[in-house]
Amino acid sequence: MTEQTTIAGSRFVGGVDYKALNERSVIDFLSPLHNASTLLGGAPSSWTVREVGDGNLNLVFIVKGSNGGIVVKQALPYVRMVGESWPLPLDRAYFEHEALKIQTLAAPHLVPKLYHFDTMQAACVMELLEPHLIVRKGLIKGIRYPKLAADIAEFCALTLFRTSDLGSPASEKRERQARFSHNITLSKITEDLVFTDPYRLSDMNLWTTPQLDKIAAAFRADAPLKLAAQELKWMFLSRGEALLHGDLHTGSIMATETNTRVIDPEFAVFGPMGFDLGAFMANLLLAFFAQEGHATERDDRQSYRAWILDTLESFWTLFGQKFLALWNKGGDGDAFLPPLFADDTGEVALEAYRHMTMARLFHDAIGFTGAKMARRILGLAHVEDLESITDTDRRAKCEKRALKMARALMVGRNSFSEISEIRDIAETIAKEPVA
Amino acid sequence: MTEQTTIAGSRFVGGVDYKALNERSVIDFLSPLHNASTLLGGAPSSWTVREVGDGNLNLVFIVKGSNGGIVVKQALPYVRMVGESWPLPLDRAYFEHEALKIQTLAAPHLVPKLYHFDTMQAACVMELLEPHLIVRKGLIKGIRYPKLAADIAEFCALTLFRTSDLGSPASEKRERQARFSHNITLSKITEDLVFTDPYRLSDMNLWTTPQLDKIAAAFRADAPLKLAAQELKWMFLSRGEALLHGDLHTGSIMATETNTRVIDPEFAVFGPMGFDLGAFMANLLLAFFAQEGHATERDDRQSYRAWILDTLESFWTLFGQKFLALWNKGGDGDAFLPPLFADDTGEVALEAYRHMTMARLFHDAIGFTGAKMARRILGLAHVEDLESITDTDRRAKCEKRALKMARALMVGRNSFSEISEIRDIAETIAKEPVA
Repeated sequence: MTEQTTIAGSRFVGGVDYKALNERSVIDFLSPLHNASTLLGGAPSSWTVREVGDGNLNLVFIVKGSNGGIVVKQALPYVRMVGESWPLPLDRAYFEHEALKIQTLAAPHLVPKLYHFDTMQAACVMELLEPHLIVRKGLIKGIRYPKLAADIAEFCALTLFRTSDLGSPASEKRERQARFSHNITLSKITEDLVFTDPYRLSDMNLWTTPQLDKIAAAFRADAPLKLAAQELKWMFLSRGEALLHGDLHTGSIMATETNTRVIDPEFAVFGPMGFDLGAFMANLLLAFFAQEGHATERDDRQSYRAWILDTLESFWTLFGQKFLALWNKGGDGDAFLPPLFADDTGEVALEAYRHMTMARLFHDAIGFTGAKMARRILGLAHVEDLESITDTDRRAKCEKRALKMARALMVGRNSFSEISEIRDIAETIAKEPVA
Repeated sequence: MTEQTTIAGSRFVGGVDYKALNERSVIDFLSPLHNASTLLGGAPSSWTVREVGDGNLNLVFIVKGSNGGIVVKQALPYVRMVGESWPLPLDRAYFEHEALKIQTLAAPHLVPKLYHFDTMQAACVMELLEPHLIVRKGLIKGIRYPKLAADIAEFCALTLFRTSDLGSPASEKRERQARFSHNITLSKITEDLVFTDPYRLSDMNLWTTPQLDKIAAAFRADAPLKLAAQELKWMFLSRGEALLHGDLHTGSIMATETNTRVIDPEFAVFGPMGFDLGAFMANLLLAFFAQEGHATERDDRQSYRAWILDTLESFWTLFGQKFLALWNKGGDGDAFLPPLFADDTGEVALEAYRHMTMARLFHDAIGFTGAKMARRILGLAHVEDLESITDTDRRAKCEKRALKMARALMVGRNSFSEISEIRDIAETIAKEPVA
């Protein structure tokens, strides 16, 4: 008997015949696939290919034919932004595909359509989202997305509720948790980069220097803050409440004014629901604090900043409504079985408990919001919202404000009860002088 | 790609050649095993066999030879106490063996020695514990175990700490959680029998009737109590804090005055640490309330009852000390990395947090204590402490007191802060008239 466990399917991901695709070989890869050929149309020789992967980890090809286009996403055996010195297992393509299948069951209209998965090549063929733009890029440009708050609220409510013990039977939940618990390497990246590295000296850390040297040192010496970070880390490690997207920042969302899709769930793992909620809110707040750096004489970005905070408020409010609506309707979950509370006193008690749970989720989400903001300024992976501000003094000013907010949220998370309080803090910090 | 996952090893448990052993075939099973033959000594024909399984699920053989004895435990493909109408997967023998291996790493002196595991036969060969007695039987007889509190406190501290994110690296924890998340069927028994059935009408429920009819109905109509039960269930389902024994009642402990061993971890699963702690405390409290039924004119059991409560208090106090000592010493875990808190303010903050965590574990444990008491009186599986009281009026009196305590603990769990309060409640309820 071995200590080793194996996931059927995943062990063959990136098999012996794995080869990183290129703009030529991707055509040979696609041409035998009937549905891909049909979607593209015409002879393979007429297809055009563009490699567009701008993320940190993967190859992404857009392939177009006379009928339309598709996307091929292939995992690389190392971290693309760092290089071959940081190897990364190809089985993350398996977890991404498994997560996307589950998200498709829960919220099919909010994720790309799946056409094909190739285990050996660790490659997934998916719907081409056009004319969608990565939301982070839209937020830098000052584009408004009227449906963003409601759609991401719905994505979170549907995927989190339906994969939780409220929405799915214990047998299904435990089987899924068994599967995603093997997503160890990518989870470890989150554990280190989000919850630990920003709070210690690490070769992996980057920040705007010398402007942020003092605040980075202050973060590393701040005991209550480090305690909050590690408490959130323990939650991330031990509270398998629902299948998380695991990386729900604005770079994992593609949108138009009328359509929103969530992509890239390769960090999927069971964890606290607040983690996904906080990831989205953190990236809205980073976008908010970055606006000062994008302001021009023609556009001071003031009204756009207000729109970002409107989006933040709407997101939380709508998430709460949608999640409660699903819970009220009753899921297939084994926790809080509806028949146990079918009488009047039962309904009253359960209703009160539901609202307590939402308050608890709010505290969790606010804590994770702070942690996800700080790691993008003091840790390895930064965000274009801030990085694109080329004047480092100007950027540092935005970053200091964001860090001030991050700390307030992490340390004070259990003292907040309304999303409007979070908005107020953001607005206050945005107006205060920066030290 | 399939949704199915497989545990290497476990899928062959109880293979095609599986056959329930009997007192004759167990000799043929053991004789080819070199270490078993050596431990027993003499020719297989000289070995004596006794089937002693008195639990709910398995066959247990004691085999003796001229040199000594061993135990063979084999899973049956159904629930022994119910019959073949309730099938149960044989892979629970795999989970038991895996859990025992991990417990052996954490606390080798507190579990039986493992000699052999046969995957095909779902059978484990283990140390014969002699002259150990099942502690539940000792508690019925009025035997005192001077080391019980300290040993079980140590077992819990070592196994829970070392398998938690405080004591074990995330990679190991996630890999183990992947494995034990497959222990779905036995976990489901806990989920239903502990947290749900006692609070609804179910054919599975049993209670002393008609004496307990009214209180059973009151439990089924008690909204705050049902909420507490379901909240504890959600914790059991979603908080994978540590590898639980999963069934740590006094029937899973064998002891002499000087030696204690924990057996039968087939319900092992990752869950909230308070679950194991509560299981042990619940069974001490059930033994306490049962004493009135075992009192005779010669022995009123008053001083023995006090000893049981002494054991309860010592257990919690010692568990807290031992768990904190392990945490202070620092584990290999990824949560609360010691270097982050190496300075003076860090140490003070972490120390404060450790004590908050112990208070939280106490609340959890007290809630699970109540739930584990109630299920033994209103649910399917009862305890010999109470069942052996043949006068049903007398038994019902004990049971009503225990149920009163169970409810107080479940509903009020977050209001307690000291184990002495729990003792006080038990003593008060024991003195009050029974309705």
